[in-house]
Amino acid sequence: MPTKPLSRFPVPTLEALPEDVRERILAVQEKAGFVPNVFLVLAHRPQEFRAFFAYHDALMEKEQGLSRAEREMIVVATSAANQCQYCVVAHGALLRIYSKRPLLADQVAINYRQAELSTRERGMLEFALKVAGAAEELDQGDFSALHQLGFEDEEIWDIGAIAAFFALSNRMAGLTQMWANPEFYLLGRVPRESSAGAVERKE
Amino acid sequence: MPTKPLSRFPVPTLEALPEDVRERILAVQEKAGFVPNVFLVLAHRPQEFRAFFAYHDALMEKEQGLSRAEREMIVVATSAANQCQYCVVAHGALLRIYSKRPLLADQVAINYRQAELSTRERGMLEFALKVAGAAEELDQGDFSALHQLGFEDEEIWDIGAIAAFFALSNRMAGLTQMWANPEFYLLGRVPRESSAGAVERKE
Amino acid sequence: MPTKPLSRFPVPTLEALPEDVRERILAVQEKAGFVPNVFLVLAHRPQEFRAFFAYHDALMEKEQGLSRAEREMIVVATSAANQCQYCVVAHGALLRIYSKRPLLADQVAINYRQAELSTRERGMLEFALKVAGAAEELDQGDFSALHQLGFEDEEIWDIGAIAAFFALSNRMAGLTQMWANPEFYLLGRVPRESSAGAVERKE
Amino acid sequence: MPTKPLSRFPVPTLEALPEDVRERILAVQEKAGFVPNVFLVLAHRPQEFRAFFAYHDALMEKEQGLSRAEREMIVVATSAANQCQYCVVAHGALLRIYSKRPLLADQVAINYRQAELSTRERGMLEFALKVAGAAEELDQGDFSALHQLGFEDEEIWDIGAIAAFFALSNRMAGLTQMWANPEFYLLGRVPRESSAGAVERKE
Amino acid sequence: MPTKPLSRFPVPTLEALPEDVRERILAVQEKAGFVPNVFLVLAHRPQEFRAFFAYHDALMEKEQGLSRAEREMIVVATSAANQCQYCVVAHGALLRIYSKRPLLADQVAINYRQAELSTRERGMLEFALKVAGAAEELDQGDFSALHQLGFEDEEIWDIGAIAAFFALSNRMAGLTQMWANPEFYLLGRVPRESSAGAVERKE
Amino acid sequence: MPTKPLSRFPVPTLEALPEDVRERILAVQEKAGFVPNVFLVLAHRPQEFRAFFAYHDALMEKEQGLSRAEREMIVVATSAANQCQYCVVAHGALLRIYSKRPLLADQVAINYRQAELSTRERGMLEFALKVAGAAEELDQGDFSALHQLGFEDEEIWDIGAIAAFFALSNRMAGLTQMWANPEFYLLGRVPRESSAGAVERKE
Repeated sequence: MPTKPLSRFPVPTLEALPEDVRERILAVQEKAGFVPNVFLVLAHRPQEFRAFFAYHDALMEKEQGLSRAEREMIVVATSAANQCQYCVVAHGALLRIYSKRPLLADQVAINYRQAELSTRERGMLEFALKVAGAAEELDQGDFSALHQLGFEDEEIWDIGAIAAFFALSNRMAGLTQMWANPEFYLLGRVPRESSAGAVERKE
Repeated sequence: MPTKPLSRFPVPTLEALPEDVRERILAVQEKAGFVPNVFLVLAHRPQEFRAFFAYHDALMEKEQGLSRAEREMIVVATSAANQCQYCVVAHGALLRIYSKRPLLADQVAINYRQAELSTRERGMLEFALKVAGAAEELDQGDFSALHQLGFEDEEIWDIGAIAAFFALSNRMAGLTQMWANPEFYLLGRVPRESSAGAVERKE
Repeated sequence: MPTKPLSRFPVPTLEALPEDVRERILAVQEKAGFVPNVFLVLAHRPQEFRAFFAYHDALMEKEQGLSRAEREMIVVATSAANQCQYCVVAHGALLRIYSKRPLLADQVAINYRQAELSTRERGMLEFALKVAGAAEELDQGDFSALHQLGFEDEEIWDIGAIAAFFALSNRMAGLTQMWANPEFYLLGRVPRESSAGAVERKE
Repeated sequence: MPTKPLSRFPVPTLEALPEDVRERILAVQEKAGFVPNVFLVLAHRPQEFRAFFAYHDALMEKEQGLSRAEREMIVVATSAANQCQYCVVAHGALLRIYSKRPLLADQVAINYRQAELSTRERGMLEFALKVAGAAEELDQGDFSALHQLGFEDEEIWDIGAIAAFFALSNRMAGLTQMWANPEFYLLGRVPRESSAGAVERKE
Repeated sequence: MPTKPLSRFPVPTLEALPEDVRERILAVQEKAGFVPNVFLVLAHRPQEFRAFFAYHDALMEKEQGLSRAEREMIVVATSAANQCQYCVVAHGALLRIYSKRPLLADQVAINYRQAELSTRERGMLEFALKVAGAAEELDQGDFSALHQLGFEDEEIWDIGAIAAFFALSNRMAGLTQMWANPEFYLLGRVPRESSAGAVERKE
Repeated sequence: MPTKPLSRFPVPTLEALPEDVRERILAVQEKAGFVPNVFLVLAHRPQEFRAFFAYHDALMEKEQGLSRAEREMIVVATSAANQCQYCVVAHGALLRIYSKRPLLADQVAINYRQAELSTRERGMLEFALKVAGAAEELDQGDFSALHQLGFEDEEIWDIGAIAAFFALSNRMAGLTQMWANPEFYLLGRVPRESSAGAVERKE
């Protein structure tokens, strides 16, 4: 793997990057102990990099509404539907960490219908997968179903917007042939692992 | 139509918006003569609004590489595949204006294979539609095909990134049930119309 | 476009045509001001031409039941699902003219679910699209749904038969690589245009 | 079966029919020994009936070009793809009779790729199935493939037009819930059966 | 056909087979009057042959629960969905024989929705086809629907297991390019035929 | 999870099982340290249990030809396409153990095209996935492709037969709602783990 290129496109050296982009990457590295490949691959285009992570943070690091685990669950489910290796592996790690349910990410990635989910979680993923795969068919019934499960409109926007953002993200991973850092595969698999802090800002 | 809500979610008044968001919207209005609905609908979330348009501008207003018409062509083709009314109508108008080919947008939206396109344009759209619909199957052959048509890697990134960004955009339109302003439908249909300047910054 | 052939197959000159076929074409030309390409392309086979237009007229020029606008709406929706350029553009023009709703054809072609339709119109198109795409799954529930919207059996036959006839028509357009006359693109787009009479017998 | 209605719509009595329609039906009955249901079901709309059978005869009873067996083979293959009981059973009988290959119809209906076909026949069905299922993707390569197998343009029109006509026919059968006369199931199954003459004009 | 190989893989002579495999084949031949090709094709791998037929017999020759005709109906419907010539033809013959309904097999193979079935039979096939085509989406509603039709859990296991077993069987037929013996095509077509005994153990 | 039933159907106690079935289960337990759920769920039908595992062992424990890792890779890839939780998780563990490549199973399950595979492995999975998803379209070209990669016919049978067997297995898991034992999730993830012996006979 070390010899497999990170991207189909050029990957800049840290020194060649604009100050703000480099600092963001160094901050991630300090917290997580490694640099998730998405940062290096997208840094090829600093302007798009900034917009991508600004959008990402607005959706994934929001304090109100959905929990961090719920947000990651949406990412894993929709990225699995899109067969996106980077996102399923990296966000699968985050899902394990935030949910403290070490089997959950694999279950959601393989088939959310057979995963150990609450009714609320299942309804949330059903909506997210419709946004990912058939947003043109969304109708009032889809919103009513979520309202009945207790979701408020702002949470529904979040579910939909996360699914929409990772529709973009999954396609960028496919375009660049991005692959997931080996470190992600094991994170959060052993329940007593208390490494959640360490990856707090990891993509 | 005036009574149909702009969005399934609240639409802020201009006064209630942060300064920078309001100014962006007023600037668009001055240039185009009306406010494209996407600005009002997404303004519900100013942080996401900023990231969305920063990303949009980075991809769609870039000077080098693909022409403006080529960029809009990608938007129309992939948004049609996603059955996104707002994007097909609004970017169809921009495609007519930038390409000065008044029949092109409808042809591309209905079936790009039957549109009057050059070999280069057809290859570009084929790649864009694969990113939109099956990015998980992209392989070296897809890149070679574009290289043979004379595309450079930076242009290929643009094709893919535009298709990816509108994968997001189309889904946000579906989520919010955004609809296209009536003004867009006629723009650029009469060839001698010299209104390209007026919509220069319209989304 | 003038140099692009009208068809993958030979297109006869008017002089070479049987009397009745030529007269039909001249009559259309006199009313519409141009000859829609479908007449020239199908005239290659006079016997099939006669059956095609006899079938077409029986379904599209019927006085009772569905309105002309409703009939054209079915054509646009199902032809869009089949990505048929000729039929979407030509019948989109007729839909604009008969409905006097200049935005309707584009909306129906892109995504009828997001078009400004009455409940009756939406139900009609849902049925038509099932005939177009999955007639083998039609069941009593589909008929009951239309009955509840106020459709009578003879109208349901019409909806289904129009969808079925354009299943044929769309495939002939694909086979022959028929393209839509430029004149169709603008017809009916400006509401005050009172040209409905002129195209009364246009295909 | 005798109590199952022939159609979801009214079926006229012979006496109630226009002279020409009744005569056509009586002629079929005399030749075949029974009235294929399609005649009775479509007679509900005499004008459409006339156009339907005029079109049918123009394509299926043509002397030049494709053989009768080849024409029926196209009907069986495309009607099977559309899961149309009436057409697969009725035209399967005709295929057995005209081809004198009693196993062929079932093989083509189940999976033409595993049927005992010549290279020419296989190529013909591949094209017909593309017209039936994805006419919007037809391109020059599809025509070249048939040219290489020795097909001339007029024969290609026939292949495509038959597939297109039965796209209509299959949908009318689905709409009306037409079912195949029991007589068809056994016809042509025993090779020495010399009943071809008897069904010459059967639909 | 005599010259078309039975399989893409070697087909053993009877003498070369292990005793138990040869005896099974000879017993079938004695009862049916011919050796169904599946026995010869799978005999290439005696160990898999034994497991295959042990599984087959456990599901298809069970005395309790579903009738023999119901079991064969599941095979025909799911094998038709998988376009498996061998299984549709061979088990179609068995379905005709066990059900004494000579038109049923063709109807089920073409489109079970248009076949002459009881509500119970239709519900059974709907479940079987979901197991065949989308087992990952099975949910409690699918089981409730069968319970309401009077099926007990052991019968539901049978329906599902038969659909699952023929998912295997159909794929082995595709892999080996197995074709159906000509004898199967006519069996059971003439109602008065009392040959059920003769094929009792035919696969 | 402990309270979630193992199956939608009754699960027998060990004491209630026939001698041979119980012994097989106890042997597995002794080697692996736990009883994989598939043994308990399928033991509900001892006769089918015996055939299932006889078939399984014939394909998965064969000494010649494909390596154990290659066989498990086929299971993981095709079971992921079928969204089968039990098989992806359980055989993913076996794949990690036999291949000693701890990241491989997740990569193959998410998208084999992006997994770190040799050309031979990729070709093998492409064929296996065609057997799993479109066996009716297998043709000589698919076999030639494998021959060119160095596969012999007996190995191709194995690839196809494993894909076919797990088409059955995945559907039985869906039918019974079988879920994977928690023990499987971690097995083989830490490279230095030398537990391969312990799971030698685990399903």
